[in-house]
Amino acid sequence: MSTQTTETTTATHPFIEACFGRPHAHVPVWMMRQAGRFLPEYREVRSKHSFMEMCLEPEVAAEVTLQPIRRFGMDAAIIFSDILVFLPAMGLNVIFPEGGPRIENKIESAADVERLAPIVPAEAIPQVYEAIKLTVNELADKTPLIGFCGAPFTLSCYAIEGKGSKDWSYTKAFMYRNPEAAVMLLNKLADASIAHLNAQLDAGASAVQIFDSWAGVLSRDDFEAWGKPYLSRIVTSVRRPDVPVIVFARGVPFEWLHGIGADMYNLDWRTSLPAAYQSLVPAGVQGNLDPAFLLGPPERAVAETRRILESMNDMTRFVFNLGHGVLPPTPPETVQAVVEAVHAHSSGATA
Amino acid sequence: MSTQTTETTTATHPFIEACFGRPHAHVPVWMMRQAGRFLPEYREVRSKHSFMEMCLEPEVAAEVTLQPIRRFGMDAAIIFSDILVFLPAMGLNVIFPEGGPRIENKIESAADVERLAPIVPAEAIPQVYEAIKLTVNELADKTPLIGFCGAPFTLSCYAIEGKGSKDWSYTKAFMYRNPEAAVMLLNKLADASIAHLNAQLDAGASAVQIFDSWAGVLSRDDFEAWGKPYLSRIVTSVRRPDVPVIVFARGVPFEWLHGIGADMYNLDWRTSLPAAYQSLVPAGVQGNLDPAFLLGPPERAVAETRRILESMNDMTRFVFNLGHGVLPPTPPETVQAVVEAVHAHSSGATA
Repeated sequence: MSTQTTETTTATHPFIEACFGRPHAHVPVWMMRQAGRFLPEYREVRSKHSFMEMCLEPEVAAEVTLQPIRRFGMDAAIIFSDILVFLPAMGLNVIFPEGGPRIENKIESAADVERLAPIVPAEAIPQVYEAIKLTVNELADKTPLIGFCGAPFTLSCYAIEGKGSKDWSYTKAFMYRNPEAAVMLLNKLADASIAHLNAQLDAGASAVQIFDSWAGVLSRDDFEAWGKPYLSRIVTSVRRPDVPVIVFARGVPFEWLHGIGADMYNLDWRTSLPAAYQSLVPAGVQGNLDPAFLLGPPERAVAETRRILESMNDMTRFVFNLGHGVLPPTPPETVQAVVEAVHAHSSGATA
Repeated sequence: MSTQTTETTTATHPFIEACFGRPHAHVPVWMMRQAGRFLPEYREVRSKHSFMEMCLEPEVAAEVTLQPIRRFGMDAAIIFSDILVFLPAMGLNVIFPEGGPRIENKIESAADVERLAPIVPAEAIPQVYEAIKLTVNELADKTPLIGFCGAPFTLSCYAIEGKGSKDWSYTKAFMYRNPEAAVMLLNKLADASIAHLNAQLDAGASAVQIFDSWAGVLSRDDFEAWGKPYLSRIVTSVRRPDVPVIVFARGVPFEWLHGIGADMYNLDWRTSLPAAYQSLVPAGVQGNLDPAFLLGPPERAVAETRRILESMNDMTRFVFNLGHGVLPPTPPETVQAVVEAVHAHSSGATA
């Protein structure tokens, strides 16, 4: 019966099954920034559109989301978008010149925080959810699609500094000086993030990942104050049956992640993945190949991939990924070799 | 007798005594980048000289080294210089435009590494050691002077990328692709660093600190390969009686530091200082106030300072410092409040 066939297919996406620690046919693999500049077909699209256009033209966003799936057969797609995509609707003017995002009217006072508007993302940025619908339709239930957002602390970094930073010290200084405004800002960003993730799930995404890309600059006390409560609130507020919620608090020691409540934690290459797995159980782990390995000899990247896979043998709640995004000069052939190494290693092993 | 008096003074610098875990009158304090842009008297000097001029004009380097000692009474001075100061003598053209250092002929091949010249720092950059002599003379044995260098991995980051980077992935890629050239590069940089530190000690410095500022981007295996052996070799090669050797491998978990052999380890604000102390014993620890606290309300900075001091009560091998350099917009009054809080907390406590 066709209905049964469809259900069986849905129930056996290795990525979804692995995120819940259920039996699956092979270790699933995807890569952060797999839809990106390292792909010639991406650069071709990018040459015709600004970055924001790519995020906000549904056909374009869907196309670049699908490119790595077609080429490499990853076990999950992730919608092409940006963590800052809903900030303009809140009143922050984001632009994307060369050299990284800028916010033209960054937050400089408590009054600036008060002025930030609450948003209904489905009305403010319908293009993102339209892109998800198009992508899900194209994927035809063969590959699950991940939606994502930035964590409130990471979004507040950009909102306060107005541009990238190594240490985000002005963000921290703002929060020390304006503790009440900081809480208001983090809560407003959490509200928007929750609505954004739920709208992505409503549009057909099968999983979500929350990127706290800059949490690694925080002390433990500050992570407890500005990171964890908001991550935890988002996780709780988007929870649905069979929908994995993944948290990537980049640079944060895994011992600090307890209590967030995610199904999976993405970890970087400085972390021992088996040690993190043992600590975070019953949650699972995702990671953690250093993307710099993909710039070196392909055989070295494959050897490191196998080393990670072997270290994680018998740990079923595991998704192979990088410890950070694919770097632009990465040869696509090396990505392919790594994906093939993951699939070859594990075929039949954990079914 | 005057000789005895001098010896007694030398023997009771709290900074030196604390570095060896010997009794001392109060917890010593100094701050990374204490000679820097946050001081109006530094900016006054800086307005008349380029950065490289400041490093290579002995009177100027000595003057800015002394400024924070005069103003705040820190327990140690650190010579004003730069970790890249000897690279030009090796054949790398370093310039310091706005936005950070650049190397005009960065290393792109194994042949480039082979061409790097061995150096005799005392001949190549005599100005640095002359600055140390002038400074030591001015300090008149009241305050010890720290010399410093960059660690080979951190120097190789600049040598290979030619400019700053967030993740130093091209450095790592170069090392994966050219493992033999990487070893040669790290060894050449270690040789120069050893000669540079020894020349600083010969000129009168009382302690040295090795800055591995970018070791935090490395996986444990890569730190074992590219970080630790060279740090360890430098430590061994500069060892002298009563001269503390401090290592700051920024962002590296303290558990990875065992075996380097330093007397003290500087740690950042993400580290639990008491936990690091227990782990690294018999070595000591230095740190670890988040410099961002100095941008917030002074009373918060003082409260955090006291929290660190209380957490380290009874741990005698401890020097108070920041977890990273003083940030340029720091109010000097806040630095003063922190120095006073350290001295007030501990007066008479550990004698």
